[in-house]
Amino acid sequence: MKKELIWHLGYSDNLNEIPTEYFSASVPGAVQLDYAKHYNLPNHNAELNFKEYAWMEDKYWFYKTEYDATNIKENKLYFISEGIDYKFDILINGECRYSYEGMYRKVEVDISDLIGSIIKIDVIIYPVPKSTVGNVTPNTRDEANQTTKPAVSYGWDFHPRLVPLGIWNNTYIFATNLVEIAKPEVTYTLNSDRTNALVELSVNSKENVTWSFYSPNGDLIYKTNSSTDKFAVNNPLLWWCNGYGEPNLYKWELSVGAEKYSGKIGFKTVSLEMNEGTWNVPEFPKTRACPPITLCLNVVNVFVKVSNWFAPEIYYATIDKKRYLEQLTLVKEANLNFVRCWGGAIVNKESFYDICDELGIMVWQEFPLGCNNYHSTPEYLSILKNEALDIINRVSKHACHVIWCGGNELFNSWSGMTDQSLALRTLNSLTLDKTPNIPFIPTSPLMGMAHGSYLFIYFEGQEAIEVMQNSKNTAYTEFGMPAISNTECLEQIASKDKLFPLVQNDLTCAHHAFKAWCQEENWASTQTIAHYFGESESLNQLVERGQYLQGVGYRFIFEEARRQKPYCSMAVNWCLNEPWPCIANNSLICYPNYIKPAYFEVAKACRSVLASARYRKLKYNAGEILDFDLWILNDGVKSVKGDTVKVFVQVGNEQPEHIIDWQFPNLSANTNFEGPTLRYKLPYVYSAENFKIILSSGKYSSEYTLLYNCPISDKPKQKILNI
Amino acid sequence: MKKELIWHLGYSDNLNEIPTEYFSASVPGAVQLDYAKHYNLPNHNAELNFKEYAWMEDKYWFYKTEYDATNIKENKLYFISEGIDYKFDILINGECRYSYEGMYRKVEVDISDLIGSIIKIDVIIYPVPKSTVGNVTPNTRDEANQTTKPAVSYGWDFHPRLVPLGIWNNTYIFATNLVEIAKPEVTYTLNSDRTNALVELSVNSKENVTWSFYSPNGDLIYKTNSSTDKFAVNNPLLWWCNGYGEPNLYKWELSVGAEKYSGKIGFKTVSLEMNEGTWNVPEFPKTRACPPITLCLNVVNVFVKVSNWFAPEIYYATIDKKRYLEQLTLVKEANLNFVRCWGGAIVNKESFYDICDELGIMVWQEFPLGCNNYHSTPEYLSILKNEALDIINRVSKHACHVIWCGGNELFNSWSGMTDQSLALRTLNSLTLDKTPNIPFIPTSPLMGMAHGSYLFIYFEGQEAIEVMQNSKNTAYTEFGMPAISNTECLEQIASKDKLFPLVQNDLTCAHHAFKAWCQEENWASTQTIAHYFGESESLNQLVERGQYLQGVGYRFIFEEARRQKPYCSMAVNWCLNEPWPCIANNSLICYPNYIKPAYFEVAKACRSVLASARYRKLKYNAGEILDFDLWILNDGVKSVKGDTVKVFVQVGNEQPEHIIDWQFPNLSANTNFEGPTLRYKLPYVYSAENFKIILSSGKYSSEYTLLYNCPISDKPKQKILNI
Repeated sequence: MKKELIWHLGYSDNLNEIPTEYFSASVPGAVQLDYAKHYNLPNHNAELNFKEYAWMEDKYWFYKTEYDATNIKENKLYFISEGIDYKFDILINGECRYSYEGMYRKVEVDISDLIGSIIKIDVIIYPVPKSTVGNVTPNTRDEANQTTKPAVSYGWDFHPRLVPLGIWNNTYIFATNLVEIAKPEVTYTLNSDRTNALVELSVNSKENVTWSFYSPNGDLIYKTNSSTDKFAVNNPLLWWCNGYGEPNLYKWELSVGAEKYSGKIGFKTVSLEMNEGTWNVPEFPKTRACPPITLCLNVVNVFVKVSNWFAPEIYYATIDKKRYLEQLTLVKEANLNFVRCWGGAIVNKESFYDICDELGIMVWQEFPLGCNNYHSTPEYLSILKNEALDIINRVSKHACHVIWCGGNELFNSWSGMTDQSLALRTLNSLTLDKTPNIPFIPTSPLMGMAHGSYLFIYFEGQEAIEVMQNSKNTAYTEFGMPAISNTECLEQIASKDKLFPLVQNDLTCAHHAFKAWCQEENWASTQTIAHYFGESESLNQLVERGQYLQGVGYRFIFEEARRQKPYCSMAVNWCLNEPWPCIANNSLICYPNYIKPAYFEVAKACRSVLASARYRKLKYNAGEILDFDLWILNDGVKSVKGDTVKVFVQVGNEQPEHIIDWQFPNLSANTNFEGPTLRYKLPYVYSAENFKIILSSGKYSSEYTLLYNCPISDKPKQKILNI
Repeated sequence: MKKELIWHLGYSDNLNEIPTEYFSASVPGAVQLDYAKHYNLPNHNAELNFKEYAWMEDKYWFYKTEYDATNIKENKLYFISEGIDYKFDILINGECRYSYEGMYRKVEVDISDLIGSIIKIDVIIYPVPKSTVGNVTPNTRDEANQTTKPAVSYGWDFHPRLVPLGIWNNTYIFATNLVEIAKPEVTYTLNSDRTNALVELSVNSKENVTWSFYSPNGDLIYKTNSSTDKFAVNNPLLWWCNGYGEPNLYKWELSVGAEKYSGKIGFKTVSLEMNEGTWNVPEFPKTRACPPITLCLNVVNVFVKVSNWFAPEIYYATIDKKRYLEQLTLVKEANLNFVRCWGGAIVNKESFYDICDELGIMVWQEFPLGCNNYHSTPEYLSILKNEALDIINRVSKHACHVIWCGGNELFNSWSGMTDQSLALRTLNSLTLDKTPNIPFIPTSPLMGMAHGSYLFIYFEGQEAIEVMQNSKNTAYTEFGMPAISNTECLEQIASKDKLFPLVQNDLTCAHHAFKAWCQEENWASTQTIAHYFGESESLNQLVERGQYLQGVGYRFIFEEARRQKPYCSMAVNWCLNEPWPCIANNSLICYPNYIKPAYFEVAKACRSVLASARYRKLKYNAGEILDFDLWILNDGVKSVKGDTVKVFVQVGNEQPEHIIDWQFPNLSANTNFEGPTLRYKLPYVYSAENFKIILSSGKYSSEYTLLYNCPISDKPKQKILNI
């Protein structure tokens, strides 16, 4: 039986100095939020308030509680925490019974010897770890290069420097008559044609055991009183990702002694297969083929669609199932099938994976390494190994989990790690040992895969539209397209008058409008907006224009990646969400949960089947030849019946002009079809500022709004059609 | 004490059928050679005789011996074999006491219970394993895809299909009074600046132990009677590869009970570092940097020079230390520093590594996987794991060992393996666990590295000279240049009249003159020879011309790879030696040990310091502009003092014409210098068939003989010099 605790918190400058004052603490929680609440600090999300939180990194934080165990009837008593962040000691009645460095360890401290007494429990949290190994610039993410804390907490282009500390996951007293805490294990083996699942049940207890196993529709399939048992499920319903089938989950229940446990499993196979065309390596002297990155679920190649995900709160301890659910539901509702849990962020709480299991959202899980050189010191290797084992054990139980990845961009110059890293070789080895059926890759990108860019206009002056249609990669596992946030989001940061005109200052830089990444003007992209539209007259107008560019850009790239299938197998944008209110960011959802228009554009681009146009650029002039390629994109598991696409171009509010009726043939499942290239000379319409390419084909229809420029001119209106 | 055994051999069609006849057997040896000797089969190296050996693959082979243990005074008695090839049972007095599949396991069978009796020992060898897993074409190397036998034995472009079986390594009776067989372990840890080596001694025995430890010059450094002990060697002499320092080896001796053991260790650090320039990855969308392949020995980047190596005999059991030594001495004498022990071949016997230790030849050791898809079946994974552990334990003890590699060309289309292979992930994991200080790569080539080509004129009609100077790779770990063998070698195959004119027939194809690889005419390259020289009038002339091309080609590629330093860090030609007499092959040494002229060209190209010319092609016409780049190549650990290179061109037997005196500056250690590009209009010399570029600079001098064509013409003799 679980029993809750009431906690108090204080801090001091060193380990041996008791706090002078204690105040009420939330568990799970973060010391910073408890302090802020007690001392009425302003919200860290607004203005530059986060700076008032900075000093808390360097303190020792002392949690204390008491538990009255005088009336405990059970034989065994434990103090249990599912996660304490980050380096800590646990003192029971003043005696240190547990020390650890890491945040993913489930801690169980046996305090049965103290049944009958009032037990004092102290948890002492050490200051934020700050590495000095390697070439470290103080107060940057470099300091995270020897820790399993999320590197993002140390500051990123969408995250201020705020490094949480505290008891960040469920923590309680557990009283039981079991000789030891029950550890139920439910595993399965699928036969080669997936017509039979051998389920194995085991629990480390023989005390009045009952296992029950239910089908996805709730029928009891199997019941046993053995601690360990196995049985076959014939013709099991497999777990499928969204868009490819049902995310079928089987439920198990276990009662052992007076305790009850339950869980769900899904049957699946997963592998990474070679992308079509990658075996063709140029002539001698000949290098190797690019590594495989086509995700194959239950022997079906899946085109991976959508987002990089991270914790939707800076103080991730506060995230609960509801918070996860509201954003993951948006993933599902847009017909998407995938999240990449990026190595710079936390490994999520259990409820995240539970929801992904239920919704059919596949999870690419990275270990907590991101954009740093995690030097393989003996100390770091020891921490990483401990933490990785807990992560592996927890995440891999979930049906949704399909890939392990060592971390983010580790084989790029800004990180400086290589294939020879003992840390990465250790992760490869541990995952092989524990989960040989789940693919492991050491980092993203691997050779042939690509990250970036993150702008509408790239450094070289080319539009993303141009660059992406001339790229050839096996997977786009990051690409960004920034936009200013919705005004509701902006209002959380500051009053509108501080944000318009939108110029560089401490506030706008701190909230990532400017100087966030590489160039001066991103993520707000005010120069880019002015380039296409001229000066904006209001914040609303600026937001609207920037969000239009984001929508066009994301939609184009998603469709382009799909057109490059099967050589390309993944389109994973940077990013779905954000952990605090950014003035501008690449996210589709702004903090805490406001949906940017680009989300809907992505949803359109990621329909299983659609008509698609590959055009060449964003803005056209009157009299210019618009040319675009027609495609039918089909990621679905179903074949598509041939049909007609009626193609129109509509300039401004003029009548749409019918260009062609394109008849496409029957398509096999998961197969695109490339149609004709159309050319159309844009007419002169002096009032118009945009035009539409309209592909009309029932539910496959698509419509693209592009920019149009018609200078005052005496040229006659004129139309040309070449097919 | 070791006691030798006298063996007899017979065969039958199945496991339970006793041979009807036994004959004398050599141990170590191969059943095929014993049979051939007994039944006077003709030598497998000559003519098409190897075909008479084919049927032996499919038999069960029964070795038998008796050991008279009636007078044994010791307490313990073992039957020991250092390698039995391949799947076998060991029967003691008719009872099976040991079964294994693999050839690298050191077998120890305790037969102490039979002291006082006459002991019958049978070793039953199963037929050659022939996989049917995956897409296997019978009677090809595909059949090796579930075995740790060398794939080359199943047939290759320089090796007939002859698959050895038998007791292939030292095998004897061992009598001792020790409680268990002594397993001495001598390991060391170097401190970070390599000024101190902590040596650890341990042996699993406490019976009258004496350890002695000697410096490279023979001084006793340490002596102890403890089973386990450790001590520091201050300022240890490090082990260096040839050309970079002395291969210093420390010797240890151990006496335990009545037994004596000894061995040598060398202190070194080794790592793979990023090649200079590889962090620069093209712009977004951006992939990863190429993996590191600069070999760093004792914190010094080494340019890796020379050959792919394989066992110099088809029946590798017959190779002894002398056989290894004669070829490895040639490696050292040409100032080379490296052998790649290719995954298609055997992992060599112990004496191979002993010699490499002594000579300062670094060893790249591949696991026995080559050019196949080694499917990760549970059975194969189990065999591979067993064998890999024995290989790791044995090879990694040697100072010469610097790299582990999973196998040959596994990530290319003709193999079809990927980074996701459980077999390769297992090798990563085992080597990480046992030898974390030795780099591991899953295969060669990795991305950025390259293999090939293997012809003077490539498929597309370009000369290797042109292709290689337009390539940019981090390491050339295979490149070939074929030539017909020396006439002494050819005489082993057949009489000269069968070999000239050299045309396609069963004999010439079997000995790899034709149809060996991809194209019809290789390796003899008769069309290429005719292209440059016209028809050859004798075998000698054909050999001479082909060998000239090989020498030019190899020399050019070695120097070119060196010019591409530091982006490029390895030049490893295919191949040093060959296991039987090939009519033509890429080897530098033909069977058994005849040196081709190209060997001396390679030796020139691989001097630590030399003047080098990068010309554009092999053959020039009179009146044509010859242009070439001047370089000083310096791989040495020493700086080079600036000096003068006098450059001449000599056409035919004309007086050499002095083109320029090029003054090059002082060079740092391990640094090349690129000089001017020279242009020279070749004069008309009607009698000449070749010309020389002469770079005269003392011991750095180089001379290149290229082909020259002066058709009958009335053009005047004319010279132009542009610098």
